Amino acid sequence: MRKILIVGAGKSASYLIKYLLDKSTEEDLHLIVGDINIRNAKKLIGDHENANAISLDVFDKVSRQAAIQSADIVVSMLPARFHLEVAIDCVTYRKNLVTASYVSEGMQNLHNAVKEKGLIFMNEIGVDPGIDHMSAMQVIDEIRAKGGKMILFESFTGGLVAPESDDNLWNYKFTWNPRNVVVAGQGSAAKFLQENSYKYIPYNRLFRRTEFLEIEGFGRFEAYANRDSLKYQSVYGLNDVRTLYRGTMRRVGFSRAWNMFVQLGLTDDSYTIDDSENMTYRDFVNAFLPYSHTDSVELKFRHALKIDQDDIVWDKLEELDIFSATKMVGLKKATPAQILQKILMDSWTLAENDKDMIVMYHKFGYELNGKRYQIDSNMVVTGEDQTYTAMAKTVGLPLAMATLAILNEKITTPGVQIPIAKDVYEPILKELQDYGIVFTEKDVPYLGYNPLNV
Amino acid sequence: MRKILIVGAGKSASYLIKYLLDKSTEEDLHLIVGDINIRNAKKLIGDHENANAISLDVFDKVSRQAAIQSADIVVSMLPARFHLEVAIDCVTYRKNLVTASYVSEGMQNLHNAVKEKGLIFMNEIGVDPGIDHMSAMQVIDEIRAKGGKMILFESFTGGLVAPESDDNLWNYKFTWNPRNVVVAGQGSAAKFLQENSYKYIPYNRLFRRTEFLEIEGFGRFEAYANRDSLKYQSVYGLNDVRTLYRGTMRRVGFSRAWNMFVQLGLTDDSYTIDDSENMTYRDFVNAFLPYSHTDSVELKFRHALKIDQDDIVWDKLEELDIFSATKMVGLKKATPAQILQKILMDSWTLAENDKDMIVMYHKFGYELNGKRYQIDSNMVVTGEDQTYTAMAKTVGLPLAMATLAILNEKITTPGVQIPIAKDVYEPILKELQDYGIVFTEKDVPYLGYNPLNV
Repeated sequence: MRKILIVGAGKSASYLIKYLLDKSTEEDLHLIVGDINIRNAKKLIGDHENANAISLDVFDKVSRQAAIQSADIVVSMLPARFHLEVAIDCVTYRKNLVTASYVSEGMQNLHNAVKEKGLIFMNEIGVDPGIDHMSAMQVIDEIRAKGGKMILFESFTGGLVAPESDDNLWNYKFTWNPRNVVVAGQGSAAKFLQENSYKYIPYNRLFRRTEFLEIEGFGRFEAYANRDSLKYQSVYGLNDVRTLYRGTMRRVGFSRAWNMFVQLGLTDDSYTIDDSENMTYRDFVNAFLPYSHTDSVELKFRHALKIDQDDIVWDKLEELDIFSATKMVGLKKATPAQILQKILMDSWTLAENDKDMIVMYHKFGYELNGKRYQIDSNMVVTGEDQTYTAMAKTVGLPLAMATLAILNEKITTPGVQIPIAKDVYEPILKELQDYGIVFTEKDVPYLGYNPLNV
Repeated sequence: MRKILIVGAGKSASYLIKYLLDKSTEEDLHLIVGDINIRNAKKLIGDHENANAISLDVFDKVSRQAAIQSADIVVSMLPARFHLEVAIDCVTYRKNLVTASYVSEGMQNLHNAVKEKGLIFMNEIGVDPGIDHMSAMQVIDEIRAKGGKMILFESFTGGLVAPESDDNLWNYKFTWNPRNVVVAGQGSAAKFLQENSYKYIPYNRLFRRTEFLEIEGFGRFEAYANRDSLKYQSVYGLNDVRTLYRGTMRRVGFSRAWNMFVQLGLTDDSYTIDDSENMTYRDFVNAFLPYSHTDSVELKFRHALKIDQDDIVWDKLEELDIFSATKMVGLKKATPAQILQKILMDSWTLAENDKDMIVMYHKFGYELNGKRYQIDSNMVVTGEDQTYTAMAKTVGLPLAMATLAILNEKITTPGVQIPIAKDVYEPILKELQDYGIVFTEKDVPYLGYNPLNV
């Protein structure tokens, strides 16, 4: 039997393991699922005969190397910063490797060694990054095949709550790492390309420069710019496009409300608040407002951010109970971002039966025979429950399919890579359709970038 | 003769040198003024018989050590980051040292060595830091001497243009390092204490949380919070105060207008703009506004920042010619902050006959016999011309007086220090009055922090 070592049995491993176990007899596979907490691994494999769970501490060199040496291929589901140890062992013991993470500098540096040994290290093959690369490259390659010249590419992804579980005023719940949501967009300005001009948006304006997207059957969404819109410009071969933009999708109204936290400074993760442990939520908010011996925290908040009496954003704040004088922060030496995260988790944690949703939206503008065209393409995937989430599905299935394709020598080009080659993405996108991961394409008039929103 | 080595003959050395030369015969002093450009040094000493200029590169160890070894005391007028080499040599050769700069960690680490050798390293004895320490400690010590308990301390300083040279709509010109003005307030939130609560202001709100100050004969000023209000809390012995705030003074209206640049992202110094060299001022502004194939940069700017048609801030922008489609940035790979600085320097550089002004304002709140009192104290110093500026005067005179006091063994406590001891500040503040550097004190009702401004 062919042995697949899966390192890390966290949240996003459910579909990956299910897919491979479903194929295990037919494909002659045996899964070794290693996690620092062996119960995580056992839970996901159940009593399947073609799998076993092991306790695996990735920092324990001896057991890590033994596990890797005994496998035919390795899938690392660890957080991105822990991949490198595994990757180096995979070079040493000549094992192929699959991850859903961004290619780090350390990973990229292994490229020559990986290539020389004829190995395949496939990365960025989850959902974002992953399905976004594959689905974008498929359309881009098709446009090029018919002689078109790409002039615009915009791509948006969002991890959201499914409509049937969408029951708060923010139309948002945490379906992934809450911390990443709280600090999203921080750092240098977001940079992108609009009609041949580089544009820059500082963090404090990011959530006020959104644009709208419509998905049939799912209504309206909005998107704010990612910091890294130009990251894949050369990788996708888009050096001559006029417009290049990558964004994050939310339900309409989220960003305007979120901007209140940004403006007040509640998302800052760069310093700690004195005596945060003993603060109430109200004390926390008040620390960002001027002192007054008469005026309420509420009025100071409304005044500072110029919130009218009948503005819906106010209801969103109240829903979070952020002005509570009894709820305690209870975190020692916490940053504003950590405290805000705690307050949001009270309200935005998925309930037992809540379902999540992944949405993706691409716009492709191109020129052909002197005319300009646009294709819009979108995908919506809804989760089944809190184990079989849309996130786990869209991350895990492409990972699993790539793993099997490498084992079966369907993917053969060696090196550290991401799934942008046709022979990689085509069979995977096709098989994903069987699991309901489908892109809907339509031709729309080419308008250029966001021409109606100033 | 007693030899004083002055390292660095830059902008702020004029009064320092003049004061010491005026006293040189009576006090038996000889000045050695060293600068990397010997002409700077020669210009400031003229043909005075008690001084000579030397060419001095502070990174040339041999000549630096020779100069220090031959002196009886050293005054370092270098930028703060270059003091340490000089300071270490002063320890080696047992020379006292005087600087106007903040005590760096490296400088503080010399304290034990300095103390053991019986040396005096007096720092922070310019204007801010310097006169602010001395004038504040004088009042605080007086309040304590009569049994009062400090409950509030607020301190504000501004380097501005003198009223007679104040001829632009911003009521501001660069009288010191322009770069520091452009990036002022960046980094973590400003933190201070208001009525026993810590308060935090993020950068994007800093210029909208100003307060007003009135100085008789000079009208109204505004101030925004410094990042480091709590820095001297324990040094001044103010651990039990209810309110502690340090701020920067500007003429009223400056901060609201400056905030436009902050909001748009023009003060960001953390990344470079593509092809900045070939941009016009208009292109630069437009890079921070959405693309439009019809709307003007002006209207997009007004819309983005919600600037009404008749708002005075608009005239301030136009005065800077920031929408010029012909003026070129001309700086390669520049940050937004560097480009903004260049645009501002077109308008805010002091003209030949312009005079500068230093303003300082302290508020002292205290309790005595169960009652609360407040003393307000302020100082205004106007420059004479562009060599004998208010900045050079208020930095140079206390430095010079401290240097002479150390030489004459009037200051005797050894160690790395700042001028907060009575025997240090009292004679200096008294002598400064002879040069027109005078604080005006008045008793005012104690109101606590800023009670009328939300």
